[in-house]
Amino acid sequence: MAKGKINVSVENIFPLIKKFLYSDHEIFLRELISNATDATLKLKHLTSIGEAKIEYGNPMIEIKVDKDKKQIRITDQGIGMTEDEVKKYINEVAFSGAEEFLDKYKDAGKDAGIIGHFGLGFYSAFMVAEKVEIITKSFKDEPAVHWVCDGSPEFTLKEAKKKDRGTEIVLHVAEDSTEFLEDSKIRELLTKYNKFMPIPIKFGMKTETLPKPEDAKEDDPAPTQEVDDIINNPAPAWTKKPADLKDEDYKSFYRELYPMQFEEPLFHIHLNVDYPFNLTGILYFPKLTNDLNIQKDRIQLYQNQVFVTDNVEGIVPEFLTMLRGVIDSPDIPLNVSRSYLQADGAVKKISSYITKKVADKLSSLFKSNREDFEQKWNDIKVVIEYGMLSEEKFFEKADKFALYPTVDGKFFTFEELQNKIKDNQTDKDEKLVVLYASDKESQHSYIEAAKAKGYEVLLMDSPIISHLMQKLETSKENLSFARVDADHLDNLIKKEDTAISKLSDEEKEKLKGEIEGVIQEKGYTIQMEAMDSSASPFIITEPEFMRRMKEMQQTGGGGGMFGMGNMPEMYNLIVNTNHELVGEILNTKTAKKRERLINQSLDLARLSKGLLKGEELTNFISRSYEMIK
Amino acid sequence: MAKGKINVSVENIFPLIKKFLYSDHEIFLRELISNATDATLKLKHLTSIGEAKIEYGNPMIEIKVDKDKKQIRITDQGIGMTEDEVKKYINEVAFSGAEEFLDKYKDAGKDAGIIGHFGLGFYSAFMVAEKVEIITKSFKDEPAVHWVCDGSPEFTLKEAKKKDRGTEIVLHVAEDSTEFLEDSKIRELLTKYNKFMPIPIKFGMKTETLPKPEDAKEDDPAPTQEVDDIINNPAPAWTKKPADLKDEDYKSFYRELYPMQFEEPLFHIHLNVDYPFNLTGILYFPKLTNDLNIQKDRIQLYQNQVFVTDNVEGIVPEFLTMLRGVIDSPDIPLNVSRSYLQADGAVKKISSYITKKVADKLSSLFKSNREDFEQKWNDIKVVIEYGMLSEEKFFEKADKFALYPTVDGKFFTFEELQNKIKDNQTDKDEKLVVLYASDKESQHSYIEAAKAKGYEVLLMDSPIISHLMQKLETSKENLSFARVDADHLDNLIKKEDTAISKLSDEEKEKLKGEIEGVIQEKGYTIQMEAMDSSASPFIITEPEFMRRMKEMQQTGGGGGMFGMGNMPEMYNLIVNTNHELVGEILNTKTAKKRERLINQSLDLARLSKGLLKGEELTNFISRSYEMIK
Repeated sequence: MAKGKINVSVENIFPLIKKFLYSDHEIFLRELISNATDATLKLKHLTSIGEAKIEYGNPMIEIKVDKDKKQIRITDQGIGMTEDEVKKYINEVAFSGAEEFLDKYKDAGKDAGIIGHFGLGFYSAFMVAEKVEIITKSFKDEPAVHWVCDGSPEFTLKEAKKKDRGTEIVLHVAEDSTEFLEDSKIRELLTKYNKFMPIPIKFGMKTETLPKPEDAKEDDPAPTQEVDDIINNPAPAWTKKPADLKDEDYKSFYRELYPMQFEEPLFHIHLNVDYPFNLTGILYFPKLTNDLNIQKDRIQLYQNQVFVTDNVEGIVPEFLTMLRGVIDSPDIPLNVSRSYLQADGAVKKISSYITKKVADKLSSLFKSNREDFEQKWNDIKVVIEYGMLSEEKFFEKADKFALYPTVDGKFFTFEELQNKIKDNQTDKDEKLVVLYASDKESQHSYIEAAKAKGYEVLLMDSPIISHLMQKLETSKENLSFARVDADHLDNLIKKEDTAISKLSDEEKEKLKGEIEGVIQEKGYTIQMEAMDSSASPFIITEPEFMRRMKEMQQTGGGGGMFGMGNMPEMYNLIVNTNHELVGEILNTKTAKKRERLINQSLDLARLSKGLLKGEELTNFISRSYEMIK
Repeated sequence: MAKGKINVSVENIFPLIKKFLYSDHEIFLRELISNATDATLKLKHLTSIGEAKIEYGNPMIEIKVDKDKKQIRITDQGIGMTEDEVKKYINEVAFSGAEEFLDKYKDAGKDAGIIGHFGLGFYSAFMVAEKVEIITKSFKDEPAVHWVCDGSPEFTLKEAKKKDRGTEIVLHVAEDSTEFLEDSKIRELLTKYNKFMPIPIKFGMKTETLPKPEDAKEDDPAPTQEVDDIINNPAPAWTKKPADLKDEDYKSFYRELYPMQFEEPLFHIHLNVDYPFNLTGILYFPKLTNDLNIQKDRIQLYQNQVFVTDNVEGIVPEFLTMLRGVIDSPDIPLNVSRSYLQADGAVKKISSYITKKVADKLSSLFKSNREDFEQKWNDIKVVIEYGMLSEEKFFEKADKFALYPTVDGKFFTFEELQNKIKDNQTDKDEKLVVLYASDKESQHSYIEAAKAKGYEVLLMDSPIISHLMQKLETSKENLSFARVDADHLDNLIKKEDTAISKLSDEEKEKLKGEIEGVIQEKGYTIQMEAMDSSASPFIITEPEFMRRMKEMQQTGGGGGMFGMGNMPEMYNLIVNTNHELVGEILNTKTAKKRERLINQSLDLARLSKGLLKGEELTNFISRSYEMIK
């Protein structure tokens, strides 16, 4: 048996690194700036513990583009490298200096905020450059070094004249990557990836207009001066303590994050946890527009202030992906598959931590300023209702502060609602019946009828409300929801007392037969009911169960019965046997006149339910014009 | 100056390959089966050119999972490896055998369909396995070899007893990857990635029930036999010549691709191009549902029959991403950034080739069976209209076959429509006015009024139709679109003759004042018009320009004016001075009665336009019940 060691040949692996290290070539800038940041943070740490006996000062990272020479230059004032360090960290692929540093200074690692992990980032330079130079001088008293590599695995190394400590990387941009020589492109990348990195990054010059001196003539041009343009905010709000931030600071950070968002956020949640994982961040509840699909401004994920992605699926529970803001954590495994993410224990803990923080914040807002919470309800309800449906733990908390608005603009918690309506809206089987409408306009006459009986009518118009009602009905006892147009009110909330009918049973039978004769083709199930004489003579209703099943199927998710989405609507026609007009129909001798009365009443009932349309509506209108002439 | 060579250390790069080679661990199976396929195809090629003097036979690839031993075994009957070849291809990372093979047998390469490119695929085994074994026997007369590696860069190599040619890979699955020991998981992956690979793949056994022998007793169980379960179709439809396929073959391939789609596709387009790039495939026009966001069954991209992705953004023009089917091309650069893809010349050519093929197919369907094309129009119009808006070249072609349906169910091309309506619908300024409705039901009375004048009314109800109308108006001369309820018809299509008013100018002024007095708070602009006495007395209209701008802004894209989406609706009230009822209003002496007439007429006009709602509708209905009693 032979033993051996697998051999990785540089000639073969180098082109692969160049092509496949990252799926996105633009990442090179983020990687090089991360390295520059690490180099600076390392120096900061060494000076702070007295190991580097120099002045740390106010170091920055500078990016320069020379379009003519096809060069991009990234310069830092960090720790720098000696010749030996270049040999160790640069000439050996996949030997990460950051890992070694963290190993050596274990306790400091976390506070120092070192980014690099695998020592491959530097090589991403070759994704866009045909030649790369490093000119570097260590903070130690050793000569500067100049390293050059043309993308083949061959490099040259010589002494350099650089006097100041730090590292300068020069990229000789390749023909197929000249897009990265555009100022606008570099600025775009800096804004995307480096906007909140901890060391100031300078790119380009800004020209600022100064006030004219007092003795200037009118025609003199105002003097200008060049100002360094720092593109990043090295201390973004989420890295600070909540106690050090005012409400206005959170709002202005929101504008920094989403410059194209003109609407202010409703409120924010500051995340800050050390154990069992590290996570900071700020989440914002935005005013949600109707179009939930257009989600340009999403939650951004950072790792030690470096932008990673705005796809937080799997890290944040789905119902909270509608929020905005940032999450920063060194503990979230990146670059791994989504299915792996979802199974990862740390990620699961992060997700439930975030859920808990959001629930706690909502609860405290509800308790501290109920009026304000009510005003915001319409903008936040979709998130809360969706959360109640999808996360059992969130449901338990939200059940205390979720609001149920009425058509009259009052807001109840479930418990308040229960207390308010239990006397009047408990039916003879001890079931509490909650009446609701989905649209104030189109269900107006039904709402009025319910209010006339002293019932509260909720306004439940969220897209997933039928699912939530189903959940409430199954998780609470003796509860049912019924839409105001689901049946005649005395059937929706059945009480002991039976109404007295003005018509005898024979009269009812006769009338029912006559109505059926006239409208039989229209497919209504006719119900004769003894109602108040002031209620409408004809009312069209739509049974709750079928309608809700259909709605649930249309809005997706379980609960709806398969195939119901395509079933036709089912309507009942309720005839109020106590209404004067109904009596008149019964007593009308001429068949033609009776038919006209029945048809006109049916049209008015259909109009009230929004069912009279097209040609039938046009004909109804013509007939009505005739009648008023 | 020192020279040197960058060194890649195996100890450092190996863990990286394991962790980051692919973002998705499940890819290991695809890679190993691709290797097995290559090994078999290479043997096929060598036997076909007489270089391997053996029987090729009917080789297959077999996958076996042993859950107890935590092993996955992948066995092929391909070319196999000698000891020297194992040393060369396995022990040297990133030394691709496929590349060398293609180099040597250049001409054959394309037909042979070799998949491998970089020789890294094998190492993906270590993403899920803690130990990997290779037992392989070359088709050459050399002893078999047994290679074992435990994930460190150390391996052992010895002779093996294997007698049959081919390679067997044994994965000892790691603790964190036991999900891949589930039959269902492996079957899922095989179905996703390997369903159409060119060598038969066997996984598991199927038990088939045989007919009972004639002399069997009633209680005897029916005999069964085990049948190999081949999970793939090695010769999917797109790899065949269109001439060899019938319509039924395309339909059954569609069911193979999308087993959960019960609806048949409307038609297909077979793609087949050799130069300047290689591409085959079949695209299907599905019946589109309203919910365009739910796009589970998308176009699938293959590379030499290996599934790559179903995200074809950038490769297929956006308007065609609603189609279904497969595209197979070795020429599409994978694993590179999207922005790079979009700038890639080959990809641009592929995109415009596909656009052209789709346009040609639609054109030929239109010409060969107009009736069938009309029947399918409603299902395909969104794609075509979107294409006309977004791709100028597609617009030019589609302008010849795009259809404009009327409310009566007729279909015109633009040219046919022009010929049909030019005499009656050209206004006095030589402008052709195309009338349309967006909803037959709610615009019924307006449609009827237009038809009464002999005008054709189109039914334009696509979501992006206002953008298309805008495009047609600007790309064709003297053309304008107007919705039937945009104004009084004589204003929409202005002709020379002026209608004679029954009322004098003074009477009109007086009447206008009285109407304004009654309804002034409702915000209508009142227009007195001399119309047919048979037209409605009051009509509410909604000016075209503002309404369309608002619609365009709501459906996104350019054209709409900024901020218009939130402006209130603007309505005009047209009073028909020639209608009997209007004369009656003028002549009514009692103010109260006149007011009642005006209000009831306005309510009926609003009802006709769908504007009478909520409380106003409920009141109107109560009044109407009173009137019929």
